Amino acid sequence: MTFIFGSELNEYGDGVLRVITLLTDYGIKDSYVAEVKGVILKLCPEAVIVDVTHDVGNYDVEEGAYNLARVVKYFPEGTIHVGVVDPGVGGSRKPLIIEAQDAFFVGPDNGLLAPAAERLGVRHVYEITRMDLLPQRVSDVFHGRDIFAPTAALLAKGMKPLDLGIEISEYQRLPLYTAKIEIGRIVAKVIHVNGFGNLVTNITSESLEAAKIKVGSTLNVKIGGTAYKLPLVKNFAAVPVGEILLVVAGGGYLDIAVNQGNAARRLGVGKGADVVLISE
Amino acid sequence: MTFIFGSELNEYGDGVLRVITLLTDYGIKDSYVAEVKGVILKLCPEAVIVDVTHDVGNYDVEEGAYNLARVVKYFPEGTIHVGVVDPGVGGSRKPLIIEAQDAFFVGPDNGLLAPAAERLGVRHVYEITRMDLLPQRVSDVFHGRDIFAPTAALLAKGMKPLDLGIEISEYQRLPLYTAKIEIGRIVAKVIHVNGFGNLVTNITSESLEAAKIKVGSTLNVKIGGTAYKLPLVKNFAAVPVGEILLVVAGGGYLDIAVNQGNAARRLGVGKGADVVLISE
Amino acid sequence: MTFIFGSELNEYGDGVLRVITLLTDYGIKDSYVAEVKGVILKLCPEAVIVDVTHDVGNYDVEEGAYNLARVVKYFPEGTIHVGVVDPGVGGSRKPLIIEAQDAFFVGPDNGLLAPAAERLGVRHVYEITRMDLLPQRVSDVFHGRDIFAPTAALLAKGMKPLDLGIEISEYQRLPLYTAKIEIGRIVAKVIHVNGFGNLVTNITSESLEAAKIKVGSTLNVKIGGTAYKLPLVKNFAAVPVGEILLVVAGGGYLDIAVNQGNAARRLGVGKGADVVLISE
Repeated sequence: MTFIFGSELNEYGDGVLRVITLLTDYGIKDSYVAEVKGVILKLCPEAVIVDVTHDVGNYDVEEGAYNLARVVKYFPEGTIHVGVVDPGVGGSRKPLIIEAQDAFFVGPDNGLLAPAAERLGVRHVYEITRMDLLPQRVSDVFHGRDIFAPTAALLAKGMKPLDLGIEISEYQRLPLYTAKIEIGRIVAKVIHVNGFGNLVTNITSESLEAAKIKVGSTLNVKIGGTAYKLPLVKNFAAVPVGEILLVVAGGGYLDIAVNQGNAARRLGVGKGADVVLISE
Repeated sequence: MTFIFGSELNEYGDGVLRVITLLTDYGIKDSYVAEVKGVILKLCPEAVIVDVTHDVGNYDVEEGAYNLARVVKYFPEGTIHVGVVDPGVGGSRKPLIIEAQDAFFVGPDNGLLAPAAERLGVRHVYEITRMDLLPQRVSDVFHGRDIFAPTAALLAKGMKPLDLGIEISEYQRLPLYTAKIEIGRIVAKVIHVNGFGNLVTNITSESLEAAKIKVGSTLNVKIGGTAYKLPLVKNFAAVPVGEILLVVAGGGYLDIAVNQGNAARRLGVGKGADVVLISE
Repeated sequence: MTFIFGSELNEYGDGVLRVITLLTDYGIKDSYVAEVKGVILKLCPEAVIVDVTHDVGNYDVEEGAYNLARVVKYFPEGTIHVGVVDPGVGGSRKPLIIEAQDAFFVGPDNGLLAPAAERLGVRHVYEITRMDLLPQRVSDVFHGRDIFAPTAALLAKGMKPLDLGIEISEYQRLPLYTAKIEIGRIVAKVIHVNGFGNLVTNITSESLEAAKIKVGSTLNVKIGGTAYKLPLVKNFAAVPVGEILLVVAGGGYLDIAVNQGNAARRLGVGKGADVVLISE
């Protein structure tokens, strides 16, 4: 079955799953995420809502874009991804629908959605203009609940993007974390510290290949100004417990990690730290 | 379609969505919330369970009531809201069902449910007495799992409140956050600090109207004893990044916020701080 | 209805609920849990996914096992529990399916699943070997997403464990928290500090019975080396607000708690502290 956006196949009774994912910087202490979910379920009771994360750093569009880009290829065809990290809410930035290969993206036009949508392939971009079709007055401060949630729900019900807005040709892009690559040498950054304390870098497995750096080798690594000699291995258990290692982790980026330990604490560095990799 | 509580329409096969929301102070580190969800799904596999929040401050009934009251109008007709912030569990406080306009509320009779139910309109109040109908022995310490979860599930399946208890005429009310209003002057409090560090006050848009204070004006504001001159604006982006502002936020309350910053940290005040608003 | 694992009854169209629970140490700040959920929904759109917790201490297999064992009896027949606290990922530990009375367990063979499965009754144990049936390349670092999630989804769809692996006779067990019991005296430990600050001990209601210690009595208790006289009561509200008490809590273990307070902070002890209970 091919899921055809906007076609008659997308109307009720078609057996198509309606997954809507949510990624925000709202946190889970407040009731904001629940308000978003209530609005969705009111319009589309069949929606299956999945939280990507609500703990993106406040206003950190780049971190949100990184997390959203990680997940998209694991979701079913036809998933609608709502992303809201929106420092410009109520200002002039446009509310957006991006129709990509096999998925929709809904959120502010500030780069948040771009890397994820581009990973799948962008087909069309729309500005949401038909606020009159949304079920409640649009506040100036909470577009996640008042614009993006109902838009996602209406798309899930089979409305077409052109019913909700107008096609546009431009959208805000976001160059997500590119490292500088030479043969045998990569100049990079820590772009994320995960829940285990792993230092996630912007070095992809493709970067390593381009630099002709191979799994199994030992590398000279400078992290936040300190020099280390570290093994590039296949998995955490390849070194003894407590030792530092380099590994291409589940998201396709190189992690600096400690086997069963916390690399951020151990090395005393965090997001934004400089990383230089040199093969011997 | 009008959802009629307790009517034959509420039996299976009617196509009615069964949304059950959960608000507790259990946190999400422990397995408590999952036990509650398991009990619900065992009795009512069709339930769609939505977390409002589980990070209410321990035993903080007022904070729980505030969060629950925020969300109710965004949920579908017929939603069953379970609220459990229950310092008196196992004592003499009654287990309650409140039947409101378009929603049920289930939880302890300590004021937690009252503001939310009253926002929709209270119709009938019941004490849950038929513990013999609940599927497991009722512990003295975990009524969320042993009484409130199965009660919500049985209501979702179409049981009537009178099948589960007896109608009563009184319930514990909770006067939620009222500010003192005069023309041109409001004496209020910070009732909540949200995930962005916004200082949420008990000043509603109705309070501002009653005090004849208008969006667009600049106000003399005393916050925790310190005096500021602050603009009352329509959205965060109306002031430069890093500046302090006043805005009626998504919940209908006035926030003291910093555009793309953290007001609680910047102003050095928190929940409970005094706020005085005076128009020039 | 009896749910028969692996029988024809478990194919689509049978009306059987497909609950999949997730317990990990991934945290909820990153996108890892969402990737797991996406993989499940892609293979089994009918799955109802419930989070047990994702805040197990990093690599803390025992804490994960404790939480998983707590919840299993509250879930519907046929639930598939996925547990991933997996310090040995990519090493030699086996990926496992445990078929228990009324539930499946999927995860690493490191003891994490054992106490929960044994609580229900273990029937058969399988090593997952058919990686060729899984939808994506299995990484060396993220078996939760690449092996355990798709395995759970395929079981939920009605595949039999023998379609996915081979039966084995041994699995890693985990002796979970046993206290030393004599008449009138129990030597135990704090095994967990919950979100309220309660000190959860490894003393069960059966332990108390075996030691002939009765609810209603006052006990001499040594906690982390300090002596207290504490009442063993039926619920928190049985003592005044702010007083220390002993109570068999919702999980069947004895808690050291403070009525509406935080026992861990008040007593200055945490996980691992020694506890001795002596009846007068």
